[in-house]
Amino acid sequence: MNVKNKIILAMDIMDLKESINVTEEVSNYINTIKIGYPLTLTAGLDCINIFKENFDLQVISDFKVADIPATNEKICQATFNANSDAIIVHGFTGEDSVKACLDTANNHGKELFLLTEMSHPGAKMFIQEHANDISKMGVKLGINNYVAPSNRPERLNEIRDIIGNDSFMISPGVGTQGGNPSETLKYSDALIIGRSIYQSSCPENSIKSIIENIK
Amino acid sequence: MNVKNKIILAMDIMDLKESINVTEEVSNYINTIKIGYPLTLTAGLDCINIFKENFDLQVISDFKVADIPATNEKICQATFNANSDAIIVHGFTGEDSVKACLDTANNHGKELFLLTEMSHPGAKMFIQEHANDISKMGVKLGINNYVAPSNRPERLNEIRDIIGNDSFMISPGVGTQGGNPSETLKYSDALIIGRSIYQSSCPENSIKSIIENIK
Repeated sequence: MNVKNKIILAMDIMDLKESINVTEEVSNYINTIKIGYPLTLTAGLDCINIFKENFDLQVISDFKVADIPATNEKICQATFNANSDAIIVHGFTGEDSVKACLDTANNHGKELFLLTEMSHPGAKMFIQEHANDISKMGVKLGINNYVAPSNRPERLNEIRDIIGNDSFMISPGVGTQGGNPSETLKYSDALIIGRSIYQSSCPENSIKSIIENIK
Repeated sequence: MNVKNKIILAMDIMDLKESINVTEEVSNYINTIKIGYPLTLTAGLDCINIFKENFDLQVISDFKVADIPATNEKICQATFNANSDAIIVHGFTGEDSVKACLDTANNHGKELFLLTEMSHPGAKMFIQEHANDISKMGVKLGINNYVAPSNRPERLNEIRDIIGNDSFMISPGVGTQGGNPSETLKYSDALIIGRSIYQSSCPENSIKSIIENIK
């Protein structure tokens, strides 16, 4: 995936109008947006097309898909039918659940991102110890795209070693959650940035300053 | 939660009309329906009200919420604002993520079900080993409602020991996934049944036969 300025805008706002306003302010600096369930549930899955048609953006649906294989397949079908370019899928549900998503993505000619680990404190309880094995499972399944958190650069390094230099890795956790942008981009291909932009009094200045900072 | 006939209808169909037709056929036998993302994404979150208003059902939103705390809170807000009676939340994301959901449920006077384990083969890779600790975490947080799979009765027994007899446990995995209804109800308070009913040529006969079987 080609990500302009190495920044993916994470749109975790629940209000469609507000999210369109923020996107408008920064749309010259990005070509990729990540939407999540907070917006999708309140605005409907059609919001994917709103971002694609109004701003010509690639849309990554961050649905952290985490169900049994039969349900995962249906979730991915609905998401790709709604024109999403990619979907983010949890790895901890195991190989069959991830494969159901991957097959659906491949059938639609769309992309899948495998979530190997998360950026919040609670991730240390159960997920973190499996991040390497989840990454290895992704490689085995032939997955090219990964999501790994930027607030633990030493972990990014390990995951990059596992997935190899040809894989594409995107990282949340910069800004509000404490990750360092430049440090992250030593290992990761793009930053996922939400609150530092959409909670800013001037989203355009915020994104310009981040772009300047990572040059 | 009071579940009529100890059966929760799992509505994992993507078509709203079809799901309404199936519900109509069995609505005399149930008072609780579980909807998932396949239906919610295609039909919109308003489908919750359709089931509540047309059939006077309790709705459990099986969204297997599995994000960072700030996003989990927004997902739960959107779901309860749409009138859902309960939400199912993954436990593997850790205490802070689950607590964000629980606080939101409590603020709305709604219910939270903690998913401790899953019923598909892939669950053995990463989740299963943590099921007991996830259940213990739920007890510590004061959670009363749990979801645990019926296709492994020995595991249901262990989880019931951890959560205690005053907790409420519901179980998917009966029927298509191989779980035994009567065996499951030794430990669990209600069965979540989907494909055995909605894929049946006669959903009413299927549910009547299940009810007869568990008497």
